[in-house]
Amino acid sequence: MTIFNKIESSELFMGKISNGSDLLEEITDICRKKSIMLGRIEAIGAVQKARLAFYNQQTREYQFITIDQPLEITQLVGNISLKDGEPVVHAHITFADKTGQAYGGHLAPGTVVFACEFIMEVFTGQVFERKPDKLTGLHLWEMRK
Amino acid sequence: MTIFNKIESSELFMGKISNGSDLLEEITDICRKKSIMLGRIEAIGAVQKARLAFYNQQTREYQFITIDQPLEITQLVGNISLKDGEPVVHAHITFADKTGQAYGGHLAPGTVVFACEFIMEVFTGQVFERKPDKLTGLHLWEMRK
Amino acid sequence: MTIFNKIESSELFMGKISNGSDLLEEITDICRKKSIMLGRIEAIGAVQKARLAFYNQQTREYQFITIDQPLEITQLVGNISLKDGEPVVHAHITFADKTGQAYGGHLAPGTVVFACEFIMEVFTGQVFERKPDKLTGLHLWEMRK
Repeated sequence: MTIFNKIESSELFMGKISNGSDLLEEITDICRKKSIMLGRIEAIGAVQKARLAFYNQQTREYQFITIDQPLEITQLVGNISLKDGEPVVHAHITFADKTGQAYGGHLAPGTVVFACEFIMEVFTGQVFERKPDKLTGLHLWEMRK
Repeated sequence: MTIFNKIESSELFMGKISNGSDLLEEITDICRKKSIMLGRIEAIGAVQKARLAFYNQQTREYQFITIDQPLEITQLVGNISLKDGEPVVHAHITFADKTGQAYGGHLAPGTVVFACEFIMEVFTGQVFERKPDKLTGLHLWEMRK
Repeated sequence: MTIFNKIESSELFMGKISNGSDLLEEITDICRKKSIMLGRIEAIGAVQKARLAFYNQQTREYQFITIDQPLEITQLVGNISLKDGEPVVHAHITFADKTGQAYGGHLAPGTVVFACEFIMEVFTGQVFERKPDKLTGLHLWEMRK
């Protein structure tokens, strides 16, 4: 069953994340500073190193993957919602190496920016709050049909 | 030659698709239920198994690829338009496995959701209707310059 | 440090790029013809051949990769801004081959369209102008905090 809410677009930001930043921390920091509680983000650029997570659906734990080399960010896309009342960024990312080979996963802390250009859209609407979900072991949005 | 029309954003939805759903069927179902005839969708999440299509440009037939294992959805992006008067979702998707390796293609029926978060934007504007295109063998939008 | 500006969405276009076009040239041409100086683009489709670039962070030069075979475009995403007063499209792209294997990088001229469907959003706001950036060797947006 699919559950969704109507939301409204309220603000748009476009900018760049500086060299040496932790990509996930930096995006989360924008949300905290601007009190963004609902939104989406997309970005392209390059990283000095990548750290990804893969959710093991059987053990219900994240497994981390580090790719310690320069990579292009072919696409970051994520949403912003709340967890314990604080903004949380859930982003997935795809990378490519110097041969064109692609990698991807759940964006984890430890991904270091070389250069990054982003567009963030802020939404207003019902609260999207992440709560533990028994079926998957993930923190998913608590929504009522 | 590039042909395009001006469209307008009319509604935004954000939500989740439940565990066990067929990803493409479920998105198409949202469009049918809400009578969405023009729009875009993006999503991230994870699947229990993936089914992709690759269009063979020479034989003009889709070849199907099944990846029967849990994968992260690093990005789904698609558009919604009409075919035979019914909403049709044309989505492409990128996945990553537990090693970070990425896969992708045209989203086919048979992709089973583990967890999935999406944003759908509804557009208004001229009708975008898919009709057989002689040059490619695909169903492309019939548009006049 | 992250720097960003508030922008506004002003127009939306949806359309298709014809078979045989150079993907990057064609998108840039739309921007020139419509005098689009700020915006975003996303696209899906397929190509007859791909040409990607990978930025070597040490030598500070782009290395080019040609994949001379039909591929699905699983995702193109890019931004539109100015360089020397002219619109410039900075797009990254992910492809998949007939086995589902994914490739990606910075979209370079020489990528030939088989079929391509895009959505372009035009923004208004402060000028985003690319200037040489000493730290990275790239042309990044000159922005003031």
